[in-house]
Amino acid sequence: MNYAKRIKKVQTILKKRRLDALLVTQPENRRYLSGYTDGDLGITETSGVLLVPAKGTPYFLTDFRYKIQAKQEVTNAEVMLYPKGLLALLEKLLPDLGIKKLGFESHYLLYSTFLQLEQFAKKAGITLAPHNNMVEELRLIKDEKEIKAIRKSVVLNEQVFREVYELLSPKMSELDVALMIEYLMKKKGASGPSFESIVATGHNSALPHAVPTNTKIQKNAPLTIDMGLILDGYCSDMTRSFCVGKTGKKYKKIHRIVRKAQLAAMNTVKAGVRADQVDRAARKIISQAGYGKQFGHALGHGVGLAVHEDPRVSSMSKQKLKEGMVITIEPGIYLPGWGGIRLENMVVVRKDGCENLNSDTTELDI
Amino acid sequence: MNYAKRIKKVQTILKKRRLDALLVTQPENRRYLSGYTDGDLGITETSGVLLVPAKGTPYFLTDFRYKIQAKQEVTNAEVMLYPKGLLALLEKLLPDLGIKKLGFESHYLLYSTFLQLEQFAKKAGITLAPHNNMVEELRLIKDEKEIKAIRKSVVLNEQVFREVYELLSPKMSELDVALMIEYLMKKKGASGPSFESIVATGHNSALPHAVPTNTKIQKNAPLTIDMGLILDGYCSDMTRSFCVGKTGKKYKKIHRIVRKAQLAAMNTVKAGVRADQVDRAARKIISQAGYGKQFGHALGHGVGLAVHEDPRVSSMSKQKLKEGMVITIEPGIYLPGWGGIRLENMVVVRKDGCENLNSDTTELDI
Repeated sequence: MNYAKRIKKVQTILKKRRLDALLVTQPENRRYLSGYTDGDLGITETSGVLLVPAKGTPYFLTDFRYKIQAKQEVTNAEVMLYPKGLLALLEKLLPDLGIKKLGFESHYLLYSTFLQLEQFAKKAGITLAPHNNMVEELRLIKDEKEIKAIRKSVVLNEQVFREVYELLSPKMSELDVALMIEYLMKKKGASGPSFESIVATGHNSALPHAVPTNTKIQKNAPLTIDMGLILDGYCSDMTRSFCVGKTGKKYKKIHRIVRKAQLAAMNTVKAGVRADQVDRAARKIISQAGYGKQFGHALGHGVGLAVHEDPRVSSMSKQKLKEGMVITIEPGIYLPGWGGIRLENMVVVRKDGCENLNSDTTELDI
Repeated sequence: MNYAKRIKKVQTILKKRRLDALLVTQPENRRYLSGYTDGDLGITETSGVLLVPAKGTPYFLTDFRYKIQAKQEVTNAEVMLYPKGLLALLEKLLPDLGIKKLGFESHYLLYSTFLQLEQFAKKAGITLAPHNNMVEELRLIKDEKEIKAIRKSVVLNEQVFREVYELLSPKMSELDVALMIEYLMKKKGASGPSFESIVATGHNSALPHAVPTNTKIQKNAPLTIDMGLILDGYCSDMTRSFCVGKTGKKYKKIHRIVRKAQLAAMNTVKAGVRADQVDRAARKIISQAGYGKQFGHALGHGVGLAVHEDPRVSSMSKQKLKEGMVITIEPGIYLPGWGGIRLENMVVVRKDGCENLNSDTTELDI
């Protein structure tokens, strides 16, 4: 990836906004700008932050535990260690660099950290400027290298799904299947799942975000598997619903409606279209079939270094789709007491349409 | 667990501090006070928050995806849904409940969320009061039910370790071993690892926080495995170093020093002792053996619902140990170009000493 180019883009924005630097604390943003692959142990245990000055070389600030990895991976920034903590280092470094106005990621900084920053910033005459989504806006549009990486992630995810699909049996519980999925993902080179897999059999599949249980896979009942992995930092996300055993009439009917809604939405996707129009295309089909109230969530979301990122593809999203965005299309119908069906593909927004990243043929369709 | 009693304790603190309510956003605190078992998808995607008023019944606020789980698990709070988001609900609920001074967890609230809260709080005449660690301070001392839960987590973790230990071979890579560990944890009923396992062979073991690689397990070289799991919400954390194959002279020498340091620290632990005294007991042995500079991290940390929590057991921690605290004792010596050895047990602080939760006999000692 061209990290130098990305840093330049940030620096252009910084100059426009008259900021002397941006403190990048959000892990995917940090990776996007530096190539550093490690995540955080949650927001309270960072593995490093990136300080991007409006001019010159960025600084990658971390502690001794991550020193070797940072020096190996981060080639476009100077790696500095903070033996006494990040704040102690910033207190010295910011004045040394002549930074008077510091942008920070207000959507990924704890209030308590802000209070500590503010304390010494005031003394040093440094203004703190909250900025939301400066780097996320760059991440919205994926270049072809990124799309290639996402495609690889999608392909591996499908490979795992197919292996699992062949092995499914009513002897396995939802948890057994989820565990097998995760094991195969990692065995095949993924750094991990991009979210906790959903494996929901029978009635459980009526919950859009079901958590896998000890329930055995039911025969002749719907099964929903929603799974994704992270490969070289890039996420995939896919949902398949089908029956294990015989596929009943009701199942076929609902599945066809959901699939029709998905295809209608995919046919609506192209650069310039508003996200809510895509949502509406799917929702219309489901509503006309009489299941509008049983489709209670948004149609989709962006995917990239994060599995859930902008743009949101919902009935309320006025965001215009642009070339190079990657989004999910995932309509569903959920019938409590029976089950649910959701079908999810990932697509790239292209100038004149959409590129389906999934190789779903109709093998699971009816 | 006695959630009602815990809520009462919080309410007593709220009255003392003249707060009308506390907004609990930190996931382990939320579980501690409500019994709700789900985690968050990171700080940006919460699965619910708990509002504890100074008097009366708490409110568990969540969205429709988590409704069923919340209603099943949370018995001491009223479950309310926020179809239009948490902030929209709070904007209505706080004035309805007559809350004029709202405490919030400043160490687990994003600055951007604070800004949004502040916006309507100002209009409604509500004061926002940042509070750190109010619930964490209650969590410091574990009651016997919690210690029982932690013990189960430690026992299961050791079972997994032993199975893996028997299966180790130079044909496996560090990643293979880490994956096997995670698979067995979940297979045996853990909800997952409490942190990414460390499996570090040969030179890699000289990194205290090595990330597993494709390197094959080396024969006649040190191997460090640092692993922990979560069982019914409670964490375990254990490190073992040993040689696969023949154990060399140098290995034996270093291992003995680390083990001696560990035992010295464990012998120092009892209620009333300061955490830095325990750290010093181990550090003294390692320094006297000439390896003081090769033990670059703190001796230990608290463990409970979180794998890293207070008290910190470091040379700078003046915190007094109290009965019912659960801490790790994990000295190590790291020699770049050779390898490292770390031994970690979990112990309960008792009135007159420490209770070792690990069943480590000397089978791996030399």
